[in-house]
Amino acid sequence: MRVVDLIRRKRDSGELTRDEIEELIAAYTRGDIPDYQMSAWLMAVVLRGMRPPEIAALTEAMLNSGTVLDFSGMPGRKVGKHSTGGVGDKPSLVIAPIVAAGGVKVPMISGRGLGHTGGTLDKLEAIPGFNVNLSLADFQRVLETCGCAMIGQTAEIAPADKKIYALRDVTGTVESPALICASIMSKKLAEGIDALVLDVKTGSGAFMKNIEDAANLAELLVETGKRKGKNVVALLTDMNQPLGRKVGNSMEVAESIEILIGAGPADLRELCLELAAWMFFLGERVKTVEEGKILAADLITSGHALEKFREIVDLQGGDVRVLDDPRRLGHARQTLGVTSPTEGFITGTQCEQLGVACVVLGGGREKKDDKIDPTVGIDFHKRIGDAVERGEPLCTLHYNAATRLDEARRLVETAYRIEPEKPQTIPPLIHRVIGA
Amino acid sequence: MRVVDLIRRKRDSGELTRDEIEELIAAYTRGDIPDYQMSAWLMAVVLRGMRPPEIAALTEAMLNSGTVLDFSGMPGRKVGKHSTGGVGDKPSLVIAPIVAAGGVKVPMISGRGLGHTGGTLDKLEAIPGFNVNLSLADFQRVLETCGCAMIGQTAEIAPADKKIYALRDVTGTVESPALICASIMSKKLAEGIDALVLDVKTGSGAFMKNIEDAANLAELLVETGKRKGKNVVALLTDMNQPLGRKVGNSMEVAESIEILIGAGPADLRELCLELAAWMFFLGERVKTVEEGKILAADLITSGHALEKFREIVDLQGGDVRVLDDPRRLGHARQTLGVTSPTEGFITGTQCEQLGVACVVLGGGREKKDDKIDPTVGIDFHKRIGDAVERGEPLCTLHYNAATRLDEARRLVETAYRIEPEKPQTIPPLIHRVIGA
Repeated sequence: MRVVDLIRRKRDSGELTRDEIEELIAAYTRGDIPDYQMSAWLMAVVLRGMRPPEIAALTEAMLNSGTVLDFSGMPGRKVGKHSTGGVGDKPSLVIAPIVAAGGVKVPMISGRGLGHTGGTLDKLEAIPGFNVNLSLADFQRVLETCGCAMIGQTAEIAPADKKIYALRDVTGTVESPALICASIMSKKLAEGIDALVLDVKTGSGAFMKNIEDAANLAELLVETGKRKGKNVVALLTDMNQPLGRKVGNSMEVAESIEILIGAGPADLRELCLELAAWMFFLGERVKTVEEGKILAADLITSGHALEKFREIVDLQGGDVRVLDDPRRLGHARQTLGVTSPTEGFITGTQCEQLGVACVVLGGGREKKDDKIDPTVGIDFHKRIGDAVERGEPLCTLHYNAATRLDEARRLVETAYRIEPEKPQTIPPLIHRVIGA
Repeated sequence: MRVVDLIRRKRDSGELTRDEIEELIAAYTRGDIPDYQMSAWLMAVVLRGMRPPEIAALTEAMLNSGTVLDFSGMPGRKVGKHSTGGVGDKPSLVIAPIVAAGGVKVPMISGRGLGHTGGTLDKLEAIPGFNVNLSLADFQRVLETCGCAMIGQTAEIAPADKKIYALRDVTGTVESPALICASIMSKKLAEGIDALVLDVKTGSGAFMKNIEDAANLAELLVETGKRKGKNVVALLTDMNQPLGRKVGNSMEVAESIEILIGAGPADLRELCLELAAWMFFLGERVKTVEEGKILAADLITSGHALEKFREIVDLQGGDVRVLDDPRRLGHARQTLGVTSPTEGFITGTQCEQLGVACVVLGGGREKKDDKIDPTVGIDFHKRIGDAVERGEPLCTLHYNAATRLDEARRLVETAYRIEPEKPQTIPPLIHRVIGA
């Protein structure tokens, strides 16, 4: 195999065989193919695309570059969950304990914040002591003990993805449905799951702004999972405004606890119940998704979900007292209200900008090694469709350092579209379900 | 400037500014941009293209990465010549002495064989002692002394091109008119020339198989040269069969000497006269191209062209006795005739395959460090339109090692298209002239 021939073939819209893709990924992971050839091939993939069999082969090659967990010896169904990322996107923290409390196992390998979006690992680490860096043996032990464990990608899981992702990030080759699909599914299929529920976000705060692009990605993900014998559905959900009311790591943990005690904002609760219901359904715990939703709501009302979260936090070394007193999560020292410059109705938001504002306050990373301040964030008071008066607060910034406060405020101020007429339609929480 | 933003912009079909291109090339040449980012950008350029102002900026950035020769203090016009490469493509060896003998200076920076094509430097080195590695000071001295000097790209000339070319070669990013144009013109514009005649080949033995692709490249080259204030024309010439009768370095030198003594095959002589005529015309030595052609023919008849070649060879350290006795160039030990499997007319050749056959015999390189055997080659007895009997020799292979003889023979045997009817049209030597 001459790598340059594979690059040229993809450049000319040709197809690679399964063997060629396997050899390419294996040789790159071993260090036998230089980065400059891989990046040229990745750019050709971005611009020429890949056909489903190629995507399946790429996913498997990346999956098989590392350890593939096998929990088939452990009783019960194991169901995974993955979101493509958004602003205020915290359902994992809520769903994992609900579903585990209902008797379906949830082995969860999560990611960190990426660009303007938050990451489950960063949120969990806002809980003092919470350790997301368990060994795979400890991951299995916690999963066996309480039905759920939440960790980051270890060196053993899909090392090819880790290496390729780092290269894509600096070579403008992130935005490819084929590469996104292979990256997500190679990690998810390594989790030792029987089924998977995907939350594919679309809208101004998602990576896929356009609903058709998101639907295409969702279909690719579902098809790739099904080819590997997994039961997979994807919910195409709205990300045209932040999910829930809070963005920022500690603030999002607090809001997740609110949902687990039966309170919290309606949109977040609704999406959590839907996602949990699908996990119960694919986990064969219930006969219908409706039944799953009722089960999820019951597990909140009974307090079992919150108790399960307490168990997880405890087993992973976190301070369980934050569940009873979220103030223990800490808070930023200063706040600043951002008010509406005009009266009217909120008809839309530049949601990505709102996510960037939180990063600018210190709640996310601009460079790989940036340290996150878990206590900063934004509290949103208005949603699309709401009326606002001139001078009425749209949201409150929570910050510690004033260094980049102006920049964050400007980002937030210019992110709202306010018009005289009430919008005729408000984006639905869930656009459609793919793969059901 | 974030490199990844430039990569993304080109990926999304956007345009780069002159400043951005300058900074990109300068930083890459300095080593401040890694190969993996450059190769991703190059692939995006291959697939998205560049607009003429971008190509001009890229050419200038590469040109200005090194020394730009200035011979304006030297009396007389300086005219360059460049061919995009073909099989048996030897006119440079013939034209340079003709034009210099006519009083127009020819500073020539040439290349080596690439893929299935030969290179002027490799041919010159078939002359014992001929040194193509002159310093720029010696290049100037030889040019001043005899009106022509022929060398390879030095470290000082367009180092950006050297570095980018090496990367393109291994990342499948050679085939881009924009990149080819910038690579050629950055070297040619460094030669200190007033004008340039381009021989853009098209056909089965050229890099541009398709005449429209070749015409587009020719137009780009002409436009890019004119933007820099040079007088440039491009002759779009046929490469559907080898030029002349001989392919292989020593054999091509011998055939070039034949032309200089007034003999040799008609097609090669005709193209040499045409190219020389255009160089005389752009060099303001004659009023019309026709006049230039007569002058070129006269310089052959009078023996001045051959004498000029003797001077050049002598000044560059070569053995001038080969001009009087080409057997001193050496010859391969063995020959093998390849005969026609059928009777009919030659209606076409897979000319690239004929070039590869010569490489396989040892006359070219498959890897960068391969050593060339200058004595091997192929002597062609038939041209498109010729009648052949079954068993009649089509060509003769000249070889030293039998190791890959079968492979070469098969390549040659299958390269001829022989049909019962005489072809109605024979490809013209020159398809058109662009930029005149």
